[in-house]
Amino acid sequence: MTAYERLRAAFGRIATLNEAAAVLGWDASAMMPDGGAEARGEQVAVLAGLAHELLTAPQVAEDFAAATAPAAPWEAANFALMQEAHKRATALPQDLVEAVSRANSHCETIWRTARQTSDFALVQAPLTEVVNLARESAEILGAALGVSPYDALLASFQRGVTAADVTPVFAEYAAFLQTALPAAEARQLANPAPAMPPGPYPEAMQETLCQHLSEAAGLDYTHARLDRSAHPFCGGTPTDVRITNRYDEADVCAALMGALHETGHGIYEQNLPAAYRRQPVGEAAGSAVHESQSLIIEMQAVRTDAYLSYLAPVLSRTFARDISAAALKSRLRHVERSFIRVEADEMTYPAHVLLRFRLEQALMAGDLAVADLPGAWNEGFHALLGITPPDDRRGCLQDIHWHCGLFGYFPTYTLGAMAAAQLMAAARRAIPGLDAAFGKGDLSPLRFWLNENVHHYGASLGFNELLCHATGEALNPKAFEAHLTARYLG
Amino acid sequence: MTAYERLRAAFGRIATLNEAAAVLGWDASAMMPDGGAEARGEQVAVLAGLAHELLTAPQVAEDFAAATAPAAPWEAANFALMQEAHKRATALPQDLVEAVSRANSHCETIWRTARQTSDFALVQAPLTEVVNLARESAEILGAALGVSPYDALLASFQRGVTAADVTPVFAEYAAFLQTALPAAEARQLANPAPAMPPGPYPEAMQETLCQHLSEAAGLDYTHARLDRSAHPFCGGTPTDVRITNRYDEADVCAALMGALHETGHGIYEQNLPAAYRRQPVGEAAGSAVHESQSLIIEMQAVRTDAYLSYLAPVLSRTFARDISAAALKSRLRHVERSFIRVEADEMTYPAHVLLRFRLEQALMAGDLAVADLPGAWNEGFHALLGITPPDDRRGCLQDIHWHCGLFGYFPTYTLGAMAAAQLMAAARRAIPGLDAAFGKGDLSPLRFWLNENVHHYGASLGFNELLCHATGEALNPKAFEAHLTARYLG
Repeated sequence: MTAYERLRAAFGRIATLNEAAAVLGWDASAMMPDGGAEARGEQVAVLAGLAHELLTAPQVAEDFAAATAPAAPWEAANFALMQEAHKRATALPQDLVEAVSRANSHCETIWRTARQTSDFALVQAPLTEVVNLARESAEILGAALGVSPYDALLASFQRGVTAADVTPVFAEYAAFLQTALPAAEARQLANPAPAMPPGPYPEAMQETLCQHLSEAAGLDYTHARLDRSAHPFCGGTPTDVRITNRYDEADVCAALMGALHETGHGIYEQNLPAAYRRQPVGEAAGSAVHESQSLIIEMQAVRTDAYLSYLAPVLSRTFARDISAAALKSRLRHVERSFIRVEADEMTYPAHVLLRFRLEQALMAGDLAVADLPGAWNEGFHALLGITPPDDRRGCLQDIHWHCGLFGYFPTYTLGAMAAAQLMAAARRAIPGLDAAFGKGDLSPLRFWLNENVHHYGASLGFNELLCHATGEALNPKAFEAHLTARYLG
Repeated sequence: MTAYERLRAAFGRIATLNEAAAVLGWDASAMMPDGGAEARGEQVAVLAGLAHELLTAPQVAEDFAAATAPAAPWEAANFALMQEAHKRATALPQDLVEAVSRANSHCETIWRTARQTSDFALVQAPLTEVVNLARESAEILGAALGVSPYDALLASFQRGVTAADVTPVFAEYAAFLQTALPAAEARQLANPAPAMPPGPYPEAMQETLCQHLSEAAGLDYTHARLDRSAHPFCGGTPTDVRITNRYDEADVCAALMGALHETGHGIYEQNLPAAYRRQPVGEAAGSAVHESQSLIIEMQAVRTDAYLSYLAPVLSRTFARDISAAALKSRLRHVERSFIRVEADEMTYPAHVLLRFRLEQALMAGDLAVADLPGAWNEGFHALLGITPPDDRRGCLQDIHWHCGLFGYFPTYTLGAMAAAQLMAAARRAIPGLDAAFGKGDLSPLRFWLNENVHHYGASLGFNELLCHATGEALNPKAFEAHLTARYLG
């Protein structure tokens, strides 16, 4: 075996261990009785510790020192990804890693109470500790990788895009929103639409329909399951995808959109390049690309006039009541200024992300003290959406991310939304009759195009490379703005 | 840290890894889509490989060399169990371990076809390979542990009992059966009993009732789940027990007994000594003791007149039909000579085991060639039960055990049945009103007694030590024979 082949075997073993952890993670949210939580925490910690030990073993370092980059492009990309993972794993001193883990875990616990009581003062000290340690880690990672500290964080979730790429794109969108949002609101007011018939929509019937639509959208259920959890997610492994959903008998639309969103994630996982399974280059390209795959199903395809015209009679038959396409549209394509990110519509959602992107950069740069976060949040929120959160629970305390040490993740939501719009525009150009297929509930032409242009590339291309390859353009807000204009101002 | 403390930490880590594997094992049988099987196999293999590496690491060998046996009795027992596990893990050369794994896996695959087509010739060569490698392994293990090769195999499933202990006990039972079985059959014939009302007994209602009875029997569902699988089993971990069951709408009794059997296993796991969790001494004492805990619930307690009189009206109410205690008794306490072990009643079951115990000792000793197995089986079966299997599918091909390399396991089924009878006799002596409690569906007095006399000992006592401690007697067939005499000949 060459040094590179030994590295391949080592990374394969680590990936297999991570698969085991992924199944345990799904189980913890979807199946595990409450009493299993403590032991599960230790099981997952042991698996993570072993994966880290395998990656930082002396033999691996020796193999990196001895290995030369392979000539074949995919293997070369794989080798580069291995090197980056190894640098990340070895850059941080063990005592810093442990301090981060303790601080994040402590802050997350305090945050749960602070959010409930809307008491920012309670979490200020632990969050300051989290921010300080995250800054220290980011500096070390940035130096090791030769990028800025914030870009080192961003790249840990999505390679191939930097803060410098994102900043002007988000700024342009903020400007678009200043005119688009009032216009969309005015148009909504002027065109009152029928409401959805009231529930109950029985849970079991919702679940059966969700699985049917998910399967019809292309998730292969010989390699997947649909279960329930407190928050929908897509977990598991490429050959054993586990999506979860939740059901509200008063509102059938939330569950349908949840299932189709997670279906998009699952289809991506199922169509990653099998020849590079368990190698870094065979994994998904990152969080932003992943989000583009869920949103291109949930937001771009399923909320088209065509698909909703297909869906309305399906719902009417299933639940034996009269559900019109117009009612579905008014429910699923409604714009509204609101305080909570996870409840926001597709037009205002990027404003929530933009605020967080600005603030987390300032926190990481040391330009914003944690004590000043609530004020900066409320001011920034008002500048973007014209309303001010009445309390911190609906302001800077709403999200878990920063309070458990996640910085650099937020932008990937909106990068995903914009990429989904760019990809859909490219797919429409490439596929005649795409919307006609949607009108029959058929997402397969879109799916095959995504297989070829996104899924099969694995992590061989970074974010902007992938977008250029699939759409001819790097990240920009035009397609997303055009999509919103057509849908909400057309 | 002392050397022993380092060993404690290493064994704790290995046990945590094994917990992860246990959850994956449950998932594979109860949840996993078919398409996940290949990846799951690799996940489980990586976890097993890592556990083996951790146990055979140079540091562990150094710690064993440096450690002195602790003075405290439980820690001393723990240390002795650690030493035995380490000897087992290090005794076999790696190439033999791999040859065994390949041969077992190959033979198991062939066996599936051979059983289906009742074609022993098909499996003869692979089974010969399995037997030869098992003999080689057993010799090495026996030499390392200072016991006979067969006892080394038996002890890998149940410590504290040897073939020399078992042989006379089984022989005595065989003699008992020669008169007891015809007498029980004659009595059955002379006393025709009412049949259970025909189904369907709806699956969902059966499942709800099974969970209710399991919970009432004492399984703590904040630390357990009940799901479905092709064959019922008890898996998971002590704080997160996963029992499974299957349902036949024509026959409610099979599911009830399945659930209560697995409940007995689960209660044992949940009541192991928490202070020694993840240490060898904190685990269950072995397969025979485990089986005693399932059988004392399923066979000893639940099939009493008292409990069945409680159960009959519960079933009648649940399924809205008239189910008498007499019908339950005729269904659940029926004796019959039959060919298939897993379908056998409690009186004839030991004959199935006794045959296998004799034959597997002869195979391991080299006294029986694989080619002669079908003849020896049929002859032995006829001598014990007076009937001859019409084909090998209903003879020596029925069980998977030998065909995947399991030798020394079979006796634990009947050791468990006999231990259950001994324990129940002791519990009856110790607890006034035990059957009166059963008559109210209350198994808690029995459970508390088992907690104190069996569960809380973990693996600190071997099979016969535990029996002596709890009942005042080592393994013997008297209590079991008395139980059968009272139930079937009384």
